[in-house]
Parts: sequence; structure tokens; C-alpha cells
Amino acid sequence: MIENLRRYVPILDWGRTYDRTALSNDMIAAVIVTIMLIPQSFAYALLAGLPPEAGIYASIAPIFLYAIFGTSRALAVGPVAVVSLLTASAIGQVAEQGTAGYAVAALTLAFLSGGFLVLLGVFRLGFLANFLSHPVIAGFITASGILIATSQLKHILGVSAHGHTLPEMLSSIFSHLSEVNFITVVIGVAATGFLFWVRKNLKPTLKKLGVPSLMADVLTKAGPVAAVVSTTVAVWAFGLDDRGVKIVGDVPQSLPPLTLPGLSPDLLSALLIPAILISIIGFVESVSVAQTLAAKKRQRIDPDQELIGLGAANIGAAFTGGYPVTGGFSRSVVNFDAGAETPAAGIYTAIGLAIAAMALTPLVYYLPNATLAATIIVAVLSLVDLSILSKTWGYSRADFAAVAVTILLTLVLGVEIGVAAGVAISVLLHLYKTSRPHVAEVGLVPGTQHFRNIHRHKVETDPALVSLRVDESLYFVNARFLEDLVQRRVTEGCDVRHVVLIFSAVNEVDFSALESLEAINQRLKDMDVGLHLSEVKGPVMDRLKRSHFLNDLNGKVFLSQYDAWQNLTGDDRINIDSNIEG
Amino acid sequence: MIENLRRYVPILDWGRTYDRTALSNDMIAAVIVTIMLIPQSFAYALLAGLPPEAGIYASIAPIFLYAIFGTSRALAVGPVAVVSLLTASAIGQVAEQGTAGYAVAALTLAFLSGGFLVLLGVFRLGFLANFLSHPVIAGFITASGILIATSQLKHILGVSAHGHTLPEMLSSIFSHLSEVNFITVVIGVAATGFLFWVRKNLKPTLKKLGVPSLMADVLTKAGPVAAVVSTTVAVWAFGLDDRGVKIVGDVPQSLPPLTLPGLSPDLLSALLIPAILISIIGFVESVSVAQTLAAKKRQRIDPDQELIGLGAANIGAAFTGGYPVTGGFSRSVVNFDAGAETPAAGIYTAIGLAIAAMALTPLVYYLPNATLAATIIVAVLSLVDLSILSKTWGYSRADFAAVAVTILLTLVLGVEIGVAAGVAISVLLHLYKTSRPHVAEVGLVPGTQHFRNIHRHKVETDPALVSLRVDESLYFVNARFLEDLVQRRVTEGCDVRHVVLIFSAVNEVDFSALESLEAINQRLKDMDVGLHLSEVKGPVMDRLKRSHFLNDLNGKVFLSQYDAWQNLTGDDRINIDSNIEG
Repeated sequence: MIENLRRYVPILDWGRTYDRTALSNDMIAAVIVTIMLIPQSFAYALLAGLPPEAGIYASIAPIFLYAIFGTSRALAVGPVAVVSLLTASAIGQVAEQGTAGYAVAALTLAFLSGGFLVLLGVFRLGFLANFLSHPVIAGFITASGILIATSQLKHILGVSAHGHTLPEMLSSIFSHLSEVNFITVVIGVAATGFLFWVRKNLKPTLKKLGVPSLMADVLTKAGPVAAVVSTTVAVWAFGLDDRGVKIVGDVPQSLPPLTLPGLSPDLLSALLIPAILISIIGFVESVSVAQTLAAKKRQRIDPDQELIGLGAANIGAAFTGGYPVTGGFSRSVVNFDAGAETPAAGIYTAIGLAIAAMALTPLVYYLPNATLAATIIVAVLSLVDLSILSKTWGYSRADFAAVAVTILLTLVLGVEIGVAAGVAISVLLHLYKTSRPHVAEVGLVPGTQHFRNIHRHKVETDPALVSLRVDESLYFVNARFLEDLVQRRVTEGCDVRHVVLIFSAVNEVDFSALESLEAINQRLKDMDVGLHLSEVKGPVMDRLKRSHFLNDLNGKVFLSQYDAWQNLTGDDRINIDSNIEG
Repeated sequence: MIENLRRYVPILDWGRTYDRTALSNDMIAAVIVTIMLIPQSFAYALLAGLPPEAGIYASIAPIFLYAIFGTSRALAVGPVAVVSLLTASAIGQVAEQGTAGYAVAALTLAFLSGGFLVLLGVFRLGFLANFLSHPVIAGFITASGILIATSQLKHILGVSAHGHTLPEMLSSIFSHLSEVNFITVVIGVAATGFLFWVRKNLKPTLKKLGVPSLMADVLTKAGPVAAVVSTTVAVWAFGLDDRGVKIVGDVPQSLPPLTLPGLSPDLLSALLIPAILISIIGFVESVSVAQTLAAKKRQRIDPDQELIGLGAANIGAAFTGGYPVTGGFSRSVVNFDAGAETPAAGIYTAIGLAIAAMALTPLVYYLPNATLAATIIVAVLSLVDLSILSKTWGYSRADFAAVAVTILLTLVLGVEIGVAAGVAISVLLHLYKTSRPHVAEVGLVPGTQHFRNIHRHKVETDPALVSLRVDESLYFVNARFLEDLVQRRVTEGCDVRHVVLIFSAVNEVDFSALESLEAINQRLKDMDVGLHLSEVKGPVMDRLKRSHFLNDLNGKVFLSQYDAWQNLTGDDRINIDSNIEG
């Protein structure tokens, strides 16, 4: 009972042994993460098309809930770039940005996404995320990085543009080029340049100056804070907001409000598919971060329980003015590197952010949107990794095709079609590859009991005996291939008396393949040729025994191919109606 | 050049050796098939919602063209029940039955279907048909049989009903029950009863009376002709058409007309998906018949060339007043049993039908539709085979699910959704099965070099060495499963120093699986555990060599698991940075 509760509420597990050392380590990590999260949360809210406070709110209740239900000790949950992009794309289709309906749709999206994740977790269906292959994820993340960076150009230029695909965004920006605000451009370009410099050069410089590594890390991660402070001060001091520089403006000073997601059937059905997509992509990103960090401390995470943790976090976001969240890569790595030992670090971070939401929001009134755009651009360009194209090209053309299609369609037709096409092409290419399995005709390596491909090795063969090693599971996609292949091989040589199918690499025989085997057996019988099997695995044999195939088999099942060879060669015609071994 | 031409035009091959014996055998077969086809062609045209002559026309040019381009020597091409049903369902959505547009849509459907088949054949894409698993086909054919029989009830009852799904048809018939014409019912029920009796009992009865087997067969197959003649005479003699019995009426006396399929973009796009479906289902039916018959004479057919043969036949149908055709089961078996030796038998059949179309059509003026419906019902009920449900249930639940879903959805939502859902569920279930592959932890069988599952056999193990035999190809759907499994196993036991993955049944490692292996390698390295592979197949090894994985591997690749065992047990810590074997 308690054990069972602990499975679903991991806090009961690590909470029992929480001590002073863990407390101080967690506190230090929390302070560092909080400082980094304040500008990041504003920026991602901007990316999602939501008011800045939504980003902060989305980092408070979700962190608490994940700390209770999640299994990773270092994962930091909150708004992330890709999920923010997906959110903007999804709710942009049901509501106008800036309206109350838009914010409510974001809550609904978080609610649906959370509910779906909890459902998957309770039914232990986390494996569904595996349908997203690595090439599809890599292609999608890269394309998303490009889309996100492009979507922020309008803030850097100070124009109002829109669109959710690359062609839409670019043409919208071009048509608004006359409205460019040059002061905004100066702020945006300067902030971007500064942040790039911080990212690339600050840490080595600080290290050279003798700053300790952890401190250098913290200062580097605090780069956005510096950009935020300096550009905010500049706008305030020179009254740049009166000269067309768009600023964040009023942000309510409050704890996360209690909110209700919209639950109208129309809204729910419009957002269901995007919510599923966001859930799965968020889950995949989160689990891979969590697994990587857990391995470093020889811990493990439970992917199905992670679904429940992330689900709870999203449901929390839905009721506290947030939007969809997941475990973020950069914030989790910072948290881990800063020494977080338990999910309590997340709770302290949430408290820090709650204080910021109550006390610090007036300070960001003059913060220019261009600065936030700059932090987003610099953050997401690290997601763009076109080397996946060359890596997959070198390894396998099928994987390359999946990456290329995903990137292209995500950029041109949008995130949802991009991912769906990527999944579809991965599945189709896998089925295609297994539809023409490798089948080797083998012969005996003289003086041994081993059999090798007759086209690659010097082996003994017997014109009356054809031995075919099937290097693939047999199922409907390739069942008929085997029928054709056996028929072609047997009609080629008139002397063929026996065909042996070697099943050492056959892990499954489905009903279609069973019927193909029956057809092969029947056709070979019509030609007066025996059909035999060898090296059939236990589970496959168990399955075959449930059918009539073994009874009808015009031949035998041999434990090893060498047995088959000894029995079927030499004498002119052996008795094949005797017992069947199993 | 000539060889190449012969590949695409098989008539050049068998035509050279055509002799007098073949001629006489083919002629006899043609006469028998022609007699059987006349009522059958009318009936299937009725089923497709087309005028009766369309069924005859669809059996003339297509047979000629298939004789030239097809590879099966016994296949008889023409209208078949399932394709006629699919045709009615497809063109019922774009035109009203009985209008000129309806007949034109049928031509367009044949044209699109033919074009698609030729395309598949030229690009040798016949394997695409394999996506239809045997359970899906069996379920679909059974459900189609039920749908077709139900669709004919209205002709037996003499009411006008409509609908393309079982609930639609039944409710439509119930709402028209008051219009039932009792004379029609008498004709329909009598014809159905007679035909059932012929099918079940005539052949044994004739054999008992000493009639030779072939002749008994022919007489049995001619049963529909007897029903047609007697009911036609009855209607004519008693003027039953004036008492509400619906009759075939005027059928033009002519050779197949030259027709043009409608090519408006709207029509083409509306019929494209149904055309693809018809092509693939027709192709699957045709190829399985052709293969079965070819095997009986130790011949073989070329599935890709079959696509071209069937494609040409359908294009022929589109320009000669027909509708989609394929190789039919019953007509091909009759042709084969009657002794047809070459496709020339088909050509003679076509000539016979052409004569019938010119000379005999006035004779069917008084033929009641109820008789045609009776021939359809008796023919298609042999397609209904619910035993597939119990067969698949016994063999594998996944295959059972595919059959059940296909049957249910075909009946309730229609043929297109039924097939699509069947394909989708087959693919998903296959992916699900391979997503949780069987992985056995193995140990050494004492005194041998064999390794067996530690949970099933008494074997030697070493707490520092974990050997896992992976019984499945590794690809994106199961890549993460292996990550989790290895991590779980290694975090369980603190003494683990080495993990060996035995790849004897791994036929593929895709890019996702490669990245998972890299992640496993990295995580094990972080835990100071070595990762090794054994028994890697040649093609998999070749692929792995294209990546950095083998260079980064924190361990070795062993040719056999026994090598791995000898190297990794015994001494406290072996040197794992030495050479990599391949």
C-alpha cells in the first residue's frame, strides 16, 4: 500500500532522507536557477504570444507539482522554447493573440496536454513516444529553432508581422519593412550581439581571469539578466518607449491567479490534436534530459511515472494562469550543475519566482520586447543543428529522408504537418526496409557444422537441397516476398527436392506469414518438394504449434541446420513423414 | 532488346510455341467460361449499379489486353464481386445511379485504377500491396460478401432501397417494406434456392449418375444459365413485367463502344483514393489466384508484370464502356479446370462474349433483376468466412483484432474506412509488438559454448557480467526500450562491470537505435561499466562502421558470445581499450 503510494508520489521516497547538506545544496541551485528563469520566462511567454507574467506563473505551480510526482531529481519544469512555439501555433488557430480567448485557450491546451500525459502514465503507454524517431525529433527541433528565431525578427525590427510557417513569416516581415523602428533595431542587434558574445566568450575570459568554474558558469547564464537590466534602464532613461520602442509594460504584481481552462466542446476538439503533439514532444524532450542527468549519478527515472509528473505539472499550469510546460534542457542542466540534489531545489526555485512575481514585476515595465527576442534567438539557435543531415546521410539514406522531410515540411507547412509527416515517413521506410528482407542461400563450410552464404564463401551444396536463411521476422509486409522468392528459386532448378528455411533470426511469424508459409508448403507439395524448418526459436515454435501448419508440413522441423543437412542430403529420398521435432 | 520487350509483352514468349493441342484445349476452356460469364457479367454490372451490357463490355477488351501483357496462363480477367461493390460505393458518392454521369464516373474509375496499376508496375512497386495483411484481406472480403448479399435483398424483394453500409441498407429496406412485390419475391427466393441446391448437390448427384467429372463441373457452373433461362421465360410467358417484376429490359446489340472516361479535375480528385483502393484490392485478389494456379503447373508469375497486365486491362475497360476489372477467382478456376493452357483461351472467351453482345442481348429483355440478384447472393456467400475470426483468435490476438476491426468497420462505416482502419491497425499492432522486444539475459550452459536464458535453464553467470540477447531488430520504436532496460538492469546490481549485447537476431540498427546505443555506451561509461557487442551480423556491422559508435565504444565487439564470456569473466578487470574485432 505504502509502496504503491510511493510509486505514484516519489516525494515520499526522497523526502524521508532529506538532510541539512541536501538543503543547502538545493538552496544554492535554486537561487542560480531563479535568476536565470526570470528573463527566460518572460521571453518564452512572448514567444507563445502570451503576456509576460504567464511565463512566470507557468514556472511556479508546475515546479511544485513535478517535485511531488516526478522521478528525476534534477529536472527543472517550466516553459520551453519548442513547446512555446507549438502553443503559439495551436492557439493562434482558435483565437486572436492578445484577446482573453487566447489566454484561456492556452490554459485549455495545458489542461488537455496534462490530462493526456496522466492518462498515458496511468495506462503505462509511455512507449507511444517512441514513434517519434531520433531523426524526426532532431529534424523537428532544428526546424523549430529556425522558425522560432525567424518569428522573433519582428520584435528586433519593431514591426508587426505574423504567420506560423517560414514563408508566411518572411513575406509578412517583408511587407512590413517600411515600418521598421531603428531604435528598436539598435537595441535588438546590440542585445543579440552581446548575448552571443556572452555565450561564446565570457566563460573562457572569466576563467582566464581566475574566476572559479561554477561562478563563471553562473555569470554566463546571467548574461540575459545583464541585457535585460541595461536595455530597460536605457529605455527608461531616454524615454525610448515614446519613440516607438515596444516595451513589456504593466505586469500585474501578484501570485499566480486561480484560473479555469475553457472547456467548450468546440475548443476542446480544436485543441486535442495539438495537445497530444505538445504532450509527446514535451515528454520526449523531458525524458531524454532526465535520463541523461540521472545516468550521471547512476540513478534512474521511471518514464511512465514521468508522464504523471509532467501531466500534473501541466494541469497545475492550467489552473494557475500558465500554459503548457515540460522539463527544459538548459534550466535542468543549470540546476544539475549548480548542485541540486533533490526535487526540493525546484520547490525553492518556485518560491523564488513567486517572490519575483509579487515584488519585481514593476521593474520590468520599461523592458523592451527586442531584448526578450534577442534572448530567445540566442537560446534557440543552439537548437539548430543541421549536422544531423550529414550524419544521417552517412549512416542510412532512410534516416536521412526522415530528417529532410521533417525539416522541410515543418518549415514550409508548419509544426504539426512536419511532425506528422516525419512519423509517417519513418514508419513507411521501416516497413519498406523489412518488406524485402535479406534472405541468404547457405551451404556447409567444409569440415565444420557452420553454414554460410553460398555467394560469399566456399561451401558445400547439394542441388537437391536449397537452404535459405531468413534474416528478418516474417509478418504481413514481407510474407508474400518469401512466397515469391521460394517459388522463383525452386522453379529455377529442376532437381530441387527439399527446401529448408533457417529461422534463427525470425523473431515473429504473424498470421499473414503463417498463411504464406502454408501456401509455400502447399505449392512445394504440388511440385513434390519438401519444406523443412530449422533453428526455430522457442516463442515462434510455440506460436506455430497453435496452428495446423506443423501437422500439414510436408517435411520436418530440425533443431539445427546441421541436423537438416545430415538428414536431407546423401540418400536419394528420405522419409519426411516421420516425427516432428520441436 | 527483344528480351526486354518480352518481359513487358509476355505474349511474344508463349505465342512462339503455340500449337494445335494448345489451340483445342484453349477453345474448349473458352466455350465453358463464356457460358458461365454471360449471366455473371450482367449480375456484377447490376451490383455496380451499371446497365447490364457494361458487365459484358468489361469482359472483352480487358481480357484481350491481359492476354497480351499478363503473365498468368490461366487467369480470367473481368468484373468481380468485390470490385463491383467498391465501384458502386465509389461512384455512388459522385453521381446518381442511372445517370450518364454515373457510367462516365465508372469509366474514369477504371482509367485511374489502370493508370495507377501501370505506374506501380513500371516502378516495380508491387510490394505496396503487402501492406494489406492476410487478416485484413480476409476480414474485408467476408464483410464485403455480407454487404453485397444485403445490397441484393432489395432486388429479391422488388423494393427500391439504397445505402452503402449495413445499417443504411437495412434501415432503407425496412422503410420500404410496404412496397414489396410478391411475384418478385417468389422468383427471387426460388432462384436463390435453386442455385444453392445446384452449388451444394448437383455435382455429387451428376457424378452418382455417371456423368464425367468435367462435364458435371460444367453443368454445375451453368446453373445460373438455367435459372436465367427459366425465369426469363416465365416472365415473358405470364407477362410478369406488367405486374411489377423489374426486368433487365433493352440491352443494346453492339460490340463494345468506344468511350472516353471523364477527366475533369473534380472527378479525378474525388475518385483517386477509391481508384487506388480498388487497384490494390483487385491486384491482391488477382495475384493470389494467379500464384495458386501457376504453382499447380510449376510455373511462376511476375507480380510487377501482373500490375502492367491488370493496368492495361483496366485502361481497356475505360475506353470500351466497362468498369474496373481484375482477375476473378471463380472464373479463373473454371478456366484452369477446363484445361486452358495459354492466355489465348482468354482471347477466345472475349470473342465468344463479343458475339453474345451482338447477337444474344435481345434474349435477356425479360430477365428479372431478382434472378441476377440470386446469382450474386449465392456467389458471394461463399466469400463469407467467419472462421477467420476463430483461426486468428487461436493464433494471435493482434491478428484477431485486425480482422475484427476490419469486418466491423467495413460493415458499419463502409468499405473504404474499413480497409484503411484494417491497414492502420495492422501496422500499429506490428509496431507495438516490436516496441517491446524479447530480451533474454543469458548464461553459459556448463560444459558447452552455448548460452541460454538464465530464467529457463541452469547456467553459469558472473555478477560482474550481464549478457543480454536482443531478439529483435533495433529501430526507433524500440530503441528507447533498450536504453531503459539496460539502465534498469545495471542500476539493480552494484557489481556489474560489463554489459554484453548479443546481436545474433538483430537484423537492423537504424539511426535512432544507433543514438540509443551511443547513449547507453555513454551512460555505462559514466557508471564505469563496459559495453560490448557479440555475434553482430555482417550487414549490421557494415552499417555501424559508418558511424563513430565503434570508435567510442567503451568495450569490444566479439565474434561469438563465448569469446566475450572468456574475455570478460575470471580476472578482476580486463583491458577493454584494446583492438576492436569486426
